[in-house]
Amino acid sequence: MSNLHKALDEKLVRVGILGATGTVGQRFITLLSNHPWFIIHALGASPRSAGKPYAKAANWKQTTPIPSNVREIIVQECKPEHFKDCAIVFSGLDADVAGDIEGAFRAADLAVFSNAKNYRRDPLVPLIVPLVNDFHLSMIPQQQAQHQPPLQKGFILTNANCSTTGLVVPLRALEKSFGPIEACFVTTMQAISGAGYPGVSSLDIIDNIVPYIGGEEEKMEWETLKILGGISEEDGQKAFDMHSRYPLRVSASCNRVPVIDGHTMTVSVRFSRRPPPSPQQVREALVAYTPAARSMGCPSAPAHAIFVHEEPDRPQPRLDRYYQDGAGVSVGRVRQCPVLDIKFVVLANNVSIGAATSSIINAELAVLKGVVKLPIN
Amino acid sequence: MSNLHKALDEKLVRVGILGATGTVGQRFITLLSNHPWFIIHALGASPRSAGKPYAKAANWKQTTPIPSNVREIIVQECKPEHFKDCAIVFSGLDADVAGDIEGAFRAADLAVFSNAKNYRRDPLVPLIVPLVNDFHLSMIPQQQAQHQPPLQKGFILTNANCSTTGLVVPLRALEKSFGPIEACFVTTMQAISGAGYPGVSSLDIIDNIVPYIGGEEEKMEWETLKILGGISEEDGQKAFDMHSRYPLRVSASCNRVPVIDGHTMTVSVRFSRRPPPSPQQVREALVAYTPAARSMGCPSAPAHAIFVHEEPDRPQPRLDRYYQDGAGVSVGRVRQCPVLDIKFVVLANNVSIGAATSSIINAELAVLKGVVKLPIN
Amino acid sequence: MSNLHKALDEKLVRVGILGATGTVGQRFITLLSNHPWFIIHALGASPRSAGKPYAKAANWKQTTPIPSNVREIIVQECKPEHFKDCAIVFSGLDADVAGDIEGAFRAADLAVFSNAKNYRRDPLVPLIVPLVNDFHLSMIPQQQAQHQPPLQKGFILTNANCSTTGLVVPLRALEKSFGPIEACFVTTMQAISGAGYPGVSSLDIIDNIVPYIGGEEEKMEWETLKILGGISEEDGQKAFDMHSRYPLRVSASCNRVPVIDGHTMTVSVRFSRRPPPSPQQVREALVAYTPAARSMGCPSAPAHAIFVHEEPDRPQPRLDRYYQDGAGVSVGRVRQCPVLDIKFVVLANNVSIGAATSSIINAELAVLKGVVKLPIN
Amino acid sequence: MSNLHKALDEKLVRVGILGATGTVGQRFITLLSNHPWFIIHALGASPRSAGKPYAKAANWKQTTPIPSNVREIIVQECKPEHFKDCAIVFSGLDADVAGDIEGAFRAADLAVFSNAKNYRRDPLVPLIVPLVNDFHLSMIPQQQAQHQPPLQKGFILTNANCSTTGLVVPLRALEKSFGPIEACFVTTMQAISGAGYPGVSSLDIIDNIVPYIGGEEEKMEWETLKILGGISEEDGQKAFDMHSRYPLRVSASCNRVPVIDGHTMTVSVRFSRRPPPSPQQVREALVAYTPAARSMGCPSAPAHAIFVHEEPDRPQPRLDRYYQDGAGVSVGRVRQCPVLDIKFVVLANNVSIGAATSSIINAELAVLKGVVKLPIN
Repeated sequence: MSNLHKALDEKLVRVGILGATGTVGQRFITLLSNHPWFIIHALGASPRSAGKPYAKAANWKQTTPIPSNVREIIVQECKPEHFKDCAIVFSGLDADVAGDIEGAFRAADLAVFSNAKNYRRDPLVPLIVPLVNDFHLSMIPQQQAQHQPPLQKGFILTNANCSTTGLVVPLRALEKSFGPIEACFVTTMQAISGAGYPGVSSLDIIDNIVPYIGGEEEKMEWETLKILGGISEEDGQKAFDMHSRYPLRVSASCNRVPVIDGHTMTVSVRFSRRPPPSPQQVREALVAYTPAARSMGCPSAPAHAIFVHEEPDRPQPRLDRYYQDGAGVSVGRVRQCPVLDIKFVVLANNVSIGAATSSIINAELAVLKGVVKLPIN
Repeated sequence: MSNLHKALDEKLVRVGILGATGTVGQRFITLLSNHPWFIIHALGASPRSAGKPYAKAANWKQTTPIPSNVREIIVQECKPEHFKDCAIVFSGLDADVAGDIEGAFRAADLAVFSNAKNYRRDPLVPLIVPLVNDFHLSMIPQQQAQHQPPLQKGFILTNANCSTTGLVVPLRALEKSFGPIEACFVTTMQAISGAGYPGVSSLDIIDNIVPYIGGEEEKMEWETLKILGGISEEDGQKAFDMHSRYPLRVSASCNRVPVIDGHTMTVSVRFSRRPPPSPQQVREALVAYTPAARSMGCPSAPAHAIFVHEEPDRPQPRLDRYYQDGAGVSVGRVRQCPVLDIKFVVLANNVSIGAATSSIINAELAVLKGVVKLPIN
Repeated sequence: MSNLHKALDEKLVRVGILGATGTVGQRFITLLSNHPWFIIHALGASPRSAGKPYAKAANWKQTTPIPSNVREIIVQECKPEHFKDCAIVFSGLDADVAGDIEGAFRAADLAVFSNAKNYRRDPLVPLIVPLVNDFHLSMIPQQQAQHQPPLQKGFILTNANCSTTGLVVPLRALEKSFGPIEACFVTTMQAISGAGYPGVSSLDIIDNIVPYIGGEEEKMEWETLKILGGISEEDGQKAFDMHSRYPLRVSASCNRVPVIDGHTMTVSVRFSRRPPPSPQQVREALVAYTPAARSMGCPSAPAHAIFVHEEPDRPQPRLDRYYQDGAGVSVGRVRQCPVLDIKFVVLANNVSIGAATSSIINAELAVLKGVVKLPIN
Repeated sequence: MSNLHKALDEKLVRVGILGATGTVGQRFITLLSNHPWFIIHALGASPRSAGKPYAKAANWKQTTPIPSNVREIIVQECKPEHFKDCAIVFSGLDADVAGDIEGAFRAADLAVFSNAKNYRRDPLVPLIVPLVNDFHLSMIPQQQAQHQPPLQKGFILTNANCSTTGLVVPLRALEKSFGPIEACFVTTMQAISGAGYPGVSSLDIIDNIVPYIGGEEEKMEWETLKILGGISEEDGQKAFDMHSRYPLRVSASCNRVPVIDGHTMTVSVRFSRRPPPSPQQVREALVAYTPAARSMGCPSAPAHAIFVHEEPDRPQPRLDRYYQDGAGVSVGRVRQCPVLDIKFVVLANNVSIGAATSSIINAELAVLKGVVKLPIN
């Protein structure tokens, strides 16, 4: 452990970023430029960008400037040989290319932390929201062992869809305190940044709502089960149990709204437990929730996972999306539901905890748990 | 009847508008300026506006000019003596003054069609969405008889909250085809025009969602029961039954969104009937629904009450709020719900069918059914 | 002439539309579906759309439905042989393909009315804002004669950039009354629809201004001279004089703003005449301006070309863009300018008078002046 | 000086805030809560708020929480006796009350730094943009001497209108390098936060532009002269010369746009100097400009006053308003103007450098120059 801590303190963990010029990639760069452990070592993008200094290749859209130590890094093609010195590779690739590239990186024995959806349904790939189910990391050895050929260090780990992430944090807090949830209604009002850049045409969303986001409802309804579920084991083989011991029905209705950052959701849940907890008990359970990522000392984990508002008109995306630098989740309006048990409003920052921040905390967890093999070990 | 038709064809029905300078009042004026039966005879507003020609008194915010025949009408205070020649008085008054003024108008034997919330919970006042429960007009004689002193012509009739209106039209169509609904979830995304002018501050809603509208959820949960319920009769006394023969639980979550006109809702319902209807059966029932207002010949009733979209991303407020000049309701995305039975999206134009248009159709219904006593009868 | 009027009354003028599935094309279809003279005969789009019924090929984004008589028209590729029966071809093509296709159509002896920029600087192609410089139609015979081989009926005529159009209408009215303008400042605040679909990313424009539109300032500064200038003649050769007899300097600053439709501009002008006209004289001259398109009877020309607002806070795009169905121009805040002479605000509907409506009035003018040869002549 | 530095380092300068619950007041609190010299000692607001802890009195609208050391401060009425221990009083009062209250505070010998417009045209009150004309502080002794009775410590000093502030910073940089400017055109696109809260109704500004802000153009045209002008002296009496030695004509056109924070302006200028500087010379002069506030060590002064963008589409309010925490000004698109000499785009954060930040830097300057008398001196 002392070598590990020494390496971390000396910031010796080299990381690479795939899809570095895109929206998620820019967010990775912003977040990683001051990371206490990680140092950006390689940037990958499309062949069109490869060979250029990052500042020339990227159409930078963040409100802070390109970090000075990144401006001159020469962008590479997304090929494993350019990232072989990276202990961790973050992927902000689009789904249309992520499948092949991430697979190739894993095959080259690299540890890939992906934002893309391609491997989320893979039965050997953990789908981890770091404030919720870090124990799913225990699937990695099996993923490595079953790879052809078996891998020493390489694996793929994904984080969840941005809207799923906001939902499962409070649901996990509630299940921890009150036991299984049986049913969940969620209607999302999702920010445009969730669609990337250029993403949503302004003609489609100014003075408008689009009550449909392709594939999003299916993702929320499915990913929630994988994340909130446990791991079963039979004949030495582990498997994600999809919350099957306590069947959970999720009904999602997803909408795009003219908000830049921050996904807002109305949520209603029914517990197995009769009588169900009161609104006040729910509030207390949400406030008290402390994920392992915090107690283990992940530097990017929020000090508090969930903030519970008392004002009747909060959370609001414009006012509350910066809570904990976007790494925390805000909940408000906890009250009785006439149809299920309890309803409330959730706000999560889709570009932070809903995307790059989650990937980074996942990597921090994987380092602390020894799943990522550092060169100094 | 021939006198009635003659009067209607000759446009002899004089109407007055209370709150004429406000948002709803402006909408009444726009809609009534070309009405085939009604002629604007008197306009009422606050003492500050009284005595001025309408064009001077109003801060006109419509996209069409003030109708030329209205520009020079002198605005009156909202006192019954100025409206005694009006067979119908439409009220777009704010709730803080509507209670007293509308009560005084009724006491002066005037027929009041109100947009305000004040009398909606009165057990003798019909709460009518004209595409849904016109049969509630049958309560008017009892309201007149129980007034002290009893009234000949005067009464108060209200239309529903703008968000309730959009919900109950498809629910009524479904109950008509498939019998009672037991449970209903609805999350609204409501336009800023629903809050009047100046209403919502731009600082509160640009790049933002406000997940709370004071009193709105209670209205939706309560009004829906009154509107979809029947009328019971005992000892010669009629009473609204609040859907009590088949208890209906409604859970509403109301949000303000940066959309100018048009309330969008995600709705999920559970039927009593087992098995429930299929999505295709639901679509067909919605398309087939024909309210009495249309078959009876109300000129402001939409040709079709409900449009059902097949495209996955509709209805959208900016594209679909003008359907049937705002008098129809749009539904889309009819599909299975994993928690209840069927879910779908509803869009209703809050300033048309959700407000002034409903009041006008209610008045047309009341004229055709003889509830409004015309001078020519 | 009697044959002409007969043909027009019988709506025998067949027209085609190039780029029919795009934003401008959709607008052409909406406007032409009820045109008193023209009937849509052929629709052209990219090979990807060709062969499909229009309703399947187009991603329809208008607030009114696809006209029923257009839904089933089979979209063609943009080749002249599919349009040979069209007396008029409207082009809403993108600039990257308009040059070749429009040239081929002209070469096939077809009359092309283009919205694209490609031929606007051609010294033989009139650049006509129909409320301003219809007399530039007199260049068409020379264009036909100098074509290789010479043409009988074919030609290309363009309308102006949407922002130029809004500017030159009041400038022309002022020059007509007060003689030459020497200098003009204009800052535009342009709607997103001016960029087509998908056009401007919502991430670039919600809660934002983009102070740059590629090539737009150059277009405004150059097109204004061509449109407001006259036609000189030397040795029997006509030429556009670019306002050179009275040099005019135009300085444009173009901005994209989060408005859906309607370009707003602040304008300041200096006249040659000393003393310059007063604000009141300017107002009167703007109100009195009557373009030839109206007096000649073009059915799509606005009843009044320019509306002058007296209220201090108008025109506003959301309230005033529908003036004259978008075919008129609104002016307000006419006042002294401390640097030049007079300043004011202009609003023009970029998708109507700034695009398709202008093309259609140009075609109406060309028909009435005999520049378009009808089959029935 | 050592006592001064000691007091500053020990953060002994007590400050009060008038209008503490309003938009500008909230901004003062946010900025001052971590100020190295100043400590918030007293908060004043309307009688309705007085007596409550600040956290109860304010409808907090900032994206960071109320500073914990401010939450429990009891709000006072805006009377001098409650602020007698404050060396500095910042005023964010509305103009309708600022005149009387600020006058009373001055009469009570308190130093008032005001954001309100009431005293800006007073011939004895400096109107200071801290990056521009700090030398106008030299008028304070005359203001104190001519007061009845004469004052020892009290005075009023105002900062400029938010749109004026953005304009005069680059104009001052240009005059410093190239001598007098003769004429200036400016069209503003101003954020809604400039109108306070609730301020602009969302119905007036979503999908819209309002081409008018009452009194704003007059302020820009007049304040610019006072700020950029010098101080003349005759018979021992000082007077602001209103740039009269080199007459400067300013023409402003002010527009409200749907942007939350950040005023964007298109600016064009004509210099006295012939030939005028080139665009490249202008860029260099802007970059090189270093105001005294920086060199004197004001802690809130920006490290760089003006950032000059090379990209053609910058500055943009959403991306650039946080430059130097809102204390710097961004300029872009420096180019030739066909009518005057040079044109460019300016962006200034209206709630930071355009309001509270300027007041705070003004106070820092006044402390460093000894104009504010500290108790420890």
